[in-house]
Amino acid sequence: MDSDEFRQRAKQIVDYVAGYHDTIRQRRPVPDVTLGYLKPLVPAAAPEDPDKWNDIFEDIERVIMPGLTHWQSPYFHGYYPVGQSFAETCGDLLCNGLGSFGFSWITCPAATELEIVVMDWLAKMLTLPSEFLSGGKGGGILQSTASESTLVTMLTARNVMLTRMSATHGPVGRDVKEGIDGDVFSRLVAYSSDQAHLSMQRACMFSAIRLHAVESDDKERMTGPALAKAIAIDVEKGLIPFYCMATLGTTASCAFDDLKEIGPVCKKAGIWLHIDAAYAGSSFICPEFRPLLDGVEVADSFNFNPHKWLLTSFDCSALWYRDSSKTIEAFSVKEVMFSYEHEDTTIDFSHREIPFGHRFRALKLWFVLRLYGVNGLQAYVRKHVYLAQEFEKLVAADDRFEVTHPVTHGLVCFRLRQCSNDLNALFLAKLTTDRRVYLTATTSKDVYFLRFVVCWRKTEKSDILYSWNVIREVATALLEDTKKQ
Amino acid sequence: MDSDEFRQRAKQIVDYVAGYHDTIRQRRPVPDVTLGYLKPLVPAAAPEDPDKWNDIFEDIERVIMPGLTHWQSPYFHGYYPVGQSFAETCGDLLCNGLGSFGFSWITCPAATELEIVVMDWLAKMLTLPSEFLSGGKGGGILQSTASESTLVTMLTARNVMLTRMSATHGPVGRDVKEGIDGDVFSRLVAYSSDQAHLSMQRACMFSAIRLHAVESDDKERMTGPALAKAIAIDVEKGLIPFYCMATLGTTASCAFDDLKEIGPVCKKAGIWLHIDAAYAGSSFICPEFRPLLDGVEVADSFNFNPHKWLLTSFDCSALWYRDSSKTIEAFSVKEVMFSYEHEDTTIDFSHREIPFGHRFRALKLWFVLRLYGVNGLQAYVRKHVYLAQEFEKLVAADDRFEVTHPVTHGLVCFRLRQCSNDLNALFLAKLTTDRRVYLTATTSKDVYFLRFVVCWRKTEKSDILYSWNVIREVATALLEDTKKQ
Repeated sequence: MDSDEFRQRAKQIVDYVAGYHDTIRQRRPVPDVTLGYLKPLVPAAAPEDPDKWNDIFEDIERVIMPGLTHWQSPYFHGYYPVGQSFAETCGDLLCNGLGSFGFSWITCPAATELEIVVMDWLAKMLTLPSEFLSGGKGGGILQSTASESTLVTMLTARNVMLTRMSATHGPVGRDVKEGIDGDVFSRLVAYSSDQAHLSMQRACMFSAIRLHAVESDDKERMTGPALAKAIAIDVEKGLIPFYCMATLGTTASCAFDDLKEIGPVCKKAGIWLHIDAAYAGSSFICPEFRPLLDGVEVADSFNFNPHKWLLTSFDCSALWYRDSSKTIEAFSVKEVMFSYEHEDTTIDFSHREIPFGHRFRALKLWFVLRLYGVNGLQAYVRKHVYLAQEFEKLVAADDRFEVTHPVTHGLVCFRLRQCSNDLNALFLAKLTTDRRVYLTATTSKDVYFLRFVVCWRKTEKSDILYSWNVIREVATALLEDTKKQ
Repeated sequence: MDSDEFRQRAKQIVDYVAGYHDTIRQRRPVPDVTLGYLKPLVPAAAPEDPDKWNDIFEDIERVIMPGLTHWQSPYFHGYYPVGQSFAETCGDLLCNGLGSFGFSWITCPAATELEIVVMDWLAKMLTLPSEFLSGGKGGGILQSTASESTLVTMLTARNVMLTRMSATHGPVGRDVKEGIDGDVFSRLVAYSSDQAHLSMQRACMFSAIRLHAVESDDKERMTGPALAKAIAIDVEKGLIPFYCMATLGTTASCAFDDLKEIGPVCKKAGIWLHIDAAYAGSSFICPEFRPLLDGVEVADSFNFNPHKWLLTSFDCSALWYRDSSKTIEAFSVKEVMFSYEHEDTTIDFSHREIPFGHRFRALKLWFVLRLYGVNGLQAYVRKHVYLAQEFEKLVAADDRFEVTHPVTHGLVCFRLRQCSNDLNALFLAKLTTDRRVYLTATTSKDVYFLRFVVCWRKTEKSDILYSWNVIREVATALLEDTKKQ
């Protein structure tokens, strides 16, 4: 494909994408395919000679669309949103088109420096404490996911604690020749709410350390006293607490751990405090939601995902450190091939993450922040919260349903009132089979409930009404069937 | 930005990208900026109201271009290439534009199933053993980087060994409540050549296990006997070997570990064999290079980066397992919210990787494989090897230089003959300051040498001549300066 053909083909994709969004309401969000649908639609091997462009282009509708779950449908209400916007697509198109990336400053000064700038912009939008900004010890970095952010901060904190222990226990540090001190290492323990995302459990598995899942209160929050008690029990057992992850906006119900209580407990215990605000973090750009972040003053790291609720495509997860040097101490390995003049005074993102390469993600975020502006982004977040509240009213007005959790953001948790968990699970299955709306469900404190999330960037009240009518219709049929039996 | 504006703006970016590649020869690959250049060019905070599109568009040249290292320049010869092609940019534009992604089958059947298909296509192109294909226990997955692939296979192998040990040592497994058996854990040891990429060392740090870097032979290869000796020494010490990474195409000089010797040693020792062919793996689609992969028959996992030498943008790293269930055993955590009907018979990539979300990377790779065809991709690889050999001839014909390593792929290692390492390092510094070409250098066996890699997809012999003339010119000036002193 030469550049003239590229001009033509890429523009055809642009038009396709624009048309896709213009007509998204015509597609059911849940695909109607069974496992293995795609294989018979394509050859068993790559072509020897190039395929024709038109065949590939037609395969988007023939092969891909039948099996696409439409995350950008107004009727997609599952999980939490994954971001997309025309602004970010322009930015990421530029990123791919230029084909430059930078794992160190010299390998792409623009990529490194733009990331520093947009992370500062974002930090200011969230009014993060100034220590988290660049210029001093702090600073942000874009990671792939909240999962990765949890893991890298945990690995950093593990190294901090092992380094501290080495003062009294001899070398227990990161020397891969000598290995670990098994006794010290096996006593490390991390904390989070029992409502934390499962990536916390996975991070502990990867890091080979214990997890103490602290029982959340009746509002599904981890409290300071509960954490303090957990730490005291473990210390009594001879364990070594080193890391705590607080969740702001849990996966199940968007509950908020009590950060103002948790921070001082962590500080007193001398352990790393990481904040996971993967979804809800975007709301902190609105002054009315910012109090939920109070207590961040004593945190060591903070993370949220612009690729969830800030109109930026996956992957784009924003992570800040109070003291980035701790990560560099934990991760950095030097090699002649990657060294350059002044490397000690610059920022090399490869020393702060698991992959060695670093995508130029800052570009898409830059386009989003500039093309929406802070006011535009605030309006977008508020619109989703407003629409969730509208949905909440609809549910509350129908006495066959109950809203199970407070609605503070874009999530409404609800269930069929006075019905068993099994019947509610059947209800979700019926909705999924119907395919006109996509919802998910979960269980917390032994109660199974459905989760309705406002996801699409252009969802209107009429869309919410449409989804609600589908939900009511499916519920009516199910409840009548149940009565008959 | 509504869809009409998107049609207009995105097409403007398409034209910009096309023009960028058309005129890439006019830009020096090394940017002329100093640390901190970008900050004064942009505001200190995100705009309150949206910026104008034209201002953003103009900032590409004003803010980004001055600091861009041009990885797609014909005169960029550093590290190894990072892929880009018009085909892949079309595919990734579609990926971003659709805004769908799938961490499990149900969350996007098309994403999961297309990835299975293209990974099978690729596996067949490489003639990987059939066990690595989907359908049985094997199967591929796209990861971000070779670093991540090394880490996830190491974590998998760690779990395999701990599970095996638990038969004789009681529970030492992945239970995050009970923690690890510090004694067993601290005795785990992994192996690679001392020429392996630094991500091996980092993976060991992250995994908290020992690394035994096996001394490579005079051809910079890890041999079977050297590995066997290292394992024997460690077993004697009471250590527990569990993982070996063989490198096919080392970072320094593109040397190839002796896979045919290493495999049986690993098998005899009962340890996991992972193959890192990050750069050179792409060449195995050509029959004449495929013998370098002989021995893969006994490997447990194999990885290479289409984002290096197969015209696909970062990130896109292809990883296959002989038995994927081992990874699932190591990584999988179940939760109600993510469960769905038939989940046990489908493939959920989130159970096989560190991030929980999974980008629809298969789309760009699909576009590349179809728009080039196997023949087109083979021709592309062969062209780079031919151009490297042409450069090798130029170097060899100038008696001020010496070629230090065999040229088998797209890399030529060379240095100023009979000059100190320091003078050669100064030579690289002069080239970098000159900015017309970009090369890197490294040290192996105490010898410092420069690395010249053919990187751009459309590099011609005239481009190689241009780079060579710059290199000669800078060398001449340096050697004359040196004589004068």
